[in-house]
Amino acid sequence: MSLAQAGTTVTMLAGGVGGAKLAEGFARLLPDPRLRVIVNTADDFRLYGLAISPDIDTVTYTLAGIANPVQGWGIAGDTRQTLDAIARLGGESWFLLGDQDFGTHILRTHRLAQGESLSTITADFASALGIGPHILPMTDQPVATLLETPEGRLDFQDYFVARRQSDDVLGVAFAGIEEARPAPGVLDALAEADAIVIAPSNPIVSVGPILAVDGIRDALASAKGVRIAVSPIVGGKALKGPADRMLATLGHEVSSLGVARIYAGLIDILVIDNADADQAAAIEALGIRTVVTNTIMGGPEDRERLASELLDAAFAGARS
Amino acid sequence: MSLAQAGTTVTMLAGGVGGAKLAEGFARLLPDPRLRVIVNTADDFRLYGLAISPDIDTVTYTLAGIANPVQGWGIAGDTRQTLDAIARLGGESWFLLGDQDFGTHILRTHRLAQGESLSTITADFASALGIGPHILPMTDQPVATLLETPEGRLDFQDYFVARRQSDDVLGVAFAGIEEARPAPGVLDALAEADAIVIAPSNPIVSVGPILAVDGIRDALASAKGVRIAVSPIVGGKALKGPADRMLATLGHEVSSLGVARIYAGLIDILVIDNADADQAAAIEALGIRTVVTNTIMGGPEDRERLASELLDAAFAGARS
Repeated sequence: MSLAQAGTTVTMLAGGVGGAKLAEGFARLLPDPRLRVIVNTADDFRLYGLAISPDIDTVTYTLAGIANPVQGWGIAGDTRQTLDAIARLGGESWFLLGDQDFGTHILRTHRLAQGESLSTITADFASALGIGPHILPMTDQPVATLLETPEGRLDFQDYFVARRQSDDVLGVAFAGIEEARPAPGVLDALAEADAIVIAPSNPIVSVGPILAVDGIRDALASAKGVRIAVSPIVGGKALKGPADRMLATLGHEVSSLGVARIYAGLIDILVIDNADADQAAAIEALGIRTVVTNTIMGGPEDRERLASELLDAAFAGARS
Repeated sequence: MSLAQAGTTVTMLAGGVGGAKLAEGFARLLPDPRLRVIVNTADDFRLYGLAISPDIDTVTYTLAGIANPVQGWGIAGDTRQTLDAIARLGGESWFLLGDQDFGTHILRTHRLAQGESLSTITADFASALGIGPHILPMTDQPVATLLETPEGRLDFQDYFVARRQSDDVLGVAFAGIEEARPAPGVLDALAEADAIVIAPSNPIVSVGPILAVDGIRDALASAKGVRIAVSPIVGGKALKGPADRMLATLGHEVSSLGVARIYAGLIDILVIDNADADQAAAIEALGIRTVVTNTIMGGPEDRERLASELLDAAFAGARS
């Protein structure tokens, strides 16, 4: 708390639901605009020609306090009239979009078509919703995660939503990543922050694309701030989503130690759950400090508690 | 009724609400697919990049039995979550679109972008909604009504919706009309029908664009079927919309006789309201037979009654 009062700035790297929850925790601690959230855009896709940015929207809706509290994504209380109408007219309806959510996609698509950047649109939407923290897409250029599976190459949402993550992931590629440049503000956010926090998001397909954007990995490696990751693996399982199976089929150990090995050289501290306390020594042997705590975020107080513990760890790290 | 049983085919020229009501009347009389409705598309426009076809949608929703019975356009019971979300994000919200209605525009826009024609999409939507009659856009090429006013040139929806038809219309142009060709089926529908019915729609901006498409006026002039128009002016007033004021500022007489003069040479019969019975002689002097009846359509029975009277008049005309 004293740190927050002293002007600490935090920059997060975030995917969807897990990143959004932790971002909300920091937002409750830090006065605006000392929190900046760099968000994965490699899940972005087009449906009915509409530009959908799942992770950006999840972070935005969560920070605006309008996210669906049960599923984590989408807008609380949203209805499904538009999607039902599309289905009635013979259109595909496998990706569940609410009516208010459609409004986001319609306006974003329209503004992109007029030549505005994703980062400008994202900032405007956040401002319109009264959000103080800065939400930064990792890049304004289109990047698309492609997954190699026994059934062939799949688009991310095909794998994630339509096929319910049932395929073994044997390889991952980020189409367009060579042309992607960090969105305006991203490199500054990494260079200037007192603490850089990698959210408990999927290391492969949520944090992975962010680190793959030209310049971001280097900026993280050379950042002056303390770099802290929160392990998304607890007791050998992913808290949400297919990260555990994906790590396994890609040859990683499905554990906080496995996560530590992926981030080795990029982080100073790994926060692991109490359930994984026995891995602390092996992680420390990689030159990464560990913080062992309850990493499972329930409601807003829980998110704030974890964010506060991360700030305490970062501060301790800066003084060591 | 005997005519309907004998295989009578009817082709309508229609704008929005008035055309849709009369089309519903014919649809109740004629087994499918003996009714074809050629619909004005010069009101079509883009909003948020979405392709909106107000008259096609009004005819479609009405024939599907899902039109809003109070306002005539839009879908009964439709909600407005999407538009509210767009407004909350800073988007414009002057054109009232319901959530289900957005589904129509999203899917149409997507299919147009994939290279499908408006006529194919319109036919598929009608089929998906269980509509038997054929709904034909006047053309698959984009046409846009522009209105000259004391305030300058206005787009149709800007005049019609945003400015609530408050401007004097001093001139009308249909941008793109030179490149417009009749949509597939339109000329056949005019050549083959036993009766061609011009709906009580605005003669200037609803029927006018249809007649301005290359070949349609000639097809109407040389049609073998009986040609019947229903006057949209009753007692010197338009039943709906700005047709009366528009006729006046464009130098036409605001009466059924004025309508008869506009359609002279293209119709055999003009159906006028009882209120205008005193104009019958002057109209007949133009070589146009008159039918005097109650032309005001309330509910479905009323629409069927008027359609039936039109069929009776057409049949009498064909035998004369």
